[in-house]
Amino acid sequence: MPELRKDPIHGRWVIISTERSRRPSDFTPEERRPVGGFCPLCEGNEDRTPPEVLAFRDNGTPPNSSGWTLRVVSNKFPALRIEGELNREGEGIYDKMNGIGAHEVVIETPRHEETLATLPLKSIKNVLLAYRDRIVDLRRDPRLRYVLVFKNHGLAAGASLEHSHSQIIALPIVPKRVSEEILGAKTYFHYKDRCVFCDIIRQELQQKHRLIAENQSFLSVAPFASRFPFETWILPKTHYPSFEHMELSQYEQAAQILSDTLKKMNRVLTDPPYNYVIHTSSSPEVDGEHYHWHVEIMPKLTKVAGFEWGTGFYINPTPPEEAEEYLREAK
Amino acid sequence: MPELRKDPIHGRWVIISTERSRRPSDFTPEERRPVGGFCPLCEGNEDRTPPEVLAFRDNGTPPNSSGWTLRVVSNKFPALRIEGELNREGEGIYDKMNGIGAHEVVIETPRHEETLATLPLKSIKNVLLAYRDRIVDLRRDPRLRYVLVFKNHGLAAGASLEHSHSQIIALPIVPKRVSEEILGAKTYFHYKDRCVFCDIIRQELQQKHRLIAENQSFLSVAPFASRFPFETWILPKTHYPSFEHMELSQYEQAAQILSDTLKKMNRVLTDPPYNYVIHTSSSPEVDGEHYHWHVEIMPKLTKVAGFEWGTGFYINPTPPEEAEEYLREAK
Repeated sequence: MPELRKDPIHGRWVIISTERSRRPSDFTPEERRPVGGFCPLCEGNEDRTPPEVLAFRDNGTPPNSSGWTLRVVSNKFPALRIEGELNREGEGIYDKMNGIGAHEVVIETPRHEETLATLPLKSIKNVLLAYRDRIVDLRRDPRLRYVLVFKNHGLAAGASLEHSHSQIIALPIVPKRVSEEILGAKTYFHYKDRCVFCDIIRQELQQKHRLIAENQSFLSVAPFASRFPFETWILPKTHYPSFEHMELSQYEQAAQILSDTLKKMNRVLTDPPYNYVIHTSSSPEVDGEHYHWHVEIMPKLTKVAGFEWGTGFYINPTPPEEAEEYLREAK
Repeated sequence: MPELRKDPIHGRWVIISTERSRRPSDFTPEERRPVGGFCPLCEGNEDRTPPEVLAFRDNGTPPNSSGWTLRVVSNKFPALRIEGELNREGEGIYDKMNGIGAHEVVIETPRHEETLATLPLKSIKNVLLAYRDRIVDLRRDPRLRYVLVFKNHGLAAGASLEHSHSQIIALPIVPKRVSEEILGAKTYFHYKDRCVFCDIIRQELQQKHRLIAENQSFLSVAPFASRFPFETWILPKTHYPSFEHMELSQYEQAAQILSDTLKKMNRVLTDPPYNYVIHTSSSPEVDGEHYHWHVEIMPKLTKVAGFEWGTGFYINPTPPEEAEEYLREAK
């Protein structure tokens, strides 16, 4: 019998479809053809990207030259522009504003053939610290209300460049799904006087049905109302509303569980295309009690169809308890 | 300069990215390989589907035999099951219910090689009348709260069968996006004492910047805050909250504009994969004043990436005013 499950944060229902239950081998991996050719993100091609806004260089080489381990540059084809004043205006019944914002690319490694799953722990930690530094810097701009950090890995997940990278978009508005999630957490807090994410963590650590991995400070779980096969969330055990306001030691722990989780996915699903998004509060002074930052990783194994677009309602052919078994056991 | 636009119904912002503006020829059509082999939806194979729940037969042939022009059958691999009582229960902090509901397939034509865009008007009208009859019938079941009608066309849009068909899913809950849309329309109505969709129709008929096609009773438009390139909505000019409660003459007009719009898309985008979803109120007695049924057609030309999943915030590389120019002029 299929099951309808409700996400305790958003109130979003999903169908967990046991009739159609699909195992890792049922998902045919995307055909992988190396694109080849010139790569503007590779070491040595620094003049082919916009100037760097941040870089980590072990040997103090000058900006925009070789010798870096990580670079952050503006997107060459930005979806938003940083220059100008924010103008809001109407057009009849419609509302619009000019596209002020930032759009940056985090180049995670100088080497083309590496992926986040194969990078050493120190490099992954640096990726997380780069996210943190850019969020903190962009949040100083009073025009910008939210900084979104996400990664597309693989063509099917929307990555147009092969070289391992993530993206940062700073927006003059708080996106709708973000405010909905924060509102959901706030409503739960008002009802229970507890953080909904802390409650999820407590139950998952106790039940262990959906617990994929764990270290001193973090856990990764297959969420109860998973929308996608092998969807995985990473949460800090300590209640932090914002990604960028943790103690330094936490980023190492975060890097370790992210690495561990991505390696498990690679093993079980043969380097699947995936997206991840950092869910964080941009106003920890307001959301401090009720919101809890986390990462949502969504392997792209199925096609999202009209049903999902029309309703925000998902049919997931792999119960999270089965996904967890495969992932937990993978070394 | 890119533009941020707000959808007046949902409050959803999109980036209309002029820097990256993409024309129809920039979207490489999906490689089309006929799957071939046995098709359970073709005429003559009636014994290979579950028994029909509705069929149109011009010559009165018996049920589940040849001689039909349209059939509706239960999905052989249903996401939900119609048998049983609805049981709601908790699992710690989580909520779930058993997967009661209906999942049906509308086989739009007996012939494998036809598509909705190439079918004669009478057949398209019959497809719409089949939707209507099934919605009315399923709404009689007190366990079911919402009936969702949608179509996936093409592999990239999630169609697993090649033969032209749509799907109907009846749910024991109202999906989140549906209630959000109805709530958005209600809020607008309380503020303005006018239906937001009627206001959109008035402005689009007057401005004609985004008006793709029009007949006596319907119009199709590229919505102001389009999420996807060549997204198109079809709306009735008369205020009807529910798809299934129109006068009979309206379905012919609806078939005509749907046919016209799909033909234009085919011409401009070379038979693109697409999804459409009928947005309708299941409680016209409650939503009668403020809600207005419509169809949203979403060609699947770009990959939806992590950014969109994380935020409900879309980057659209084709301004709707440009999409409209191509589509309006296509014959």
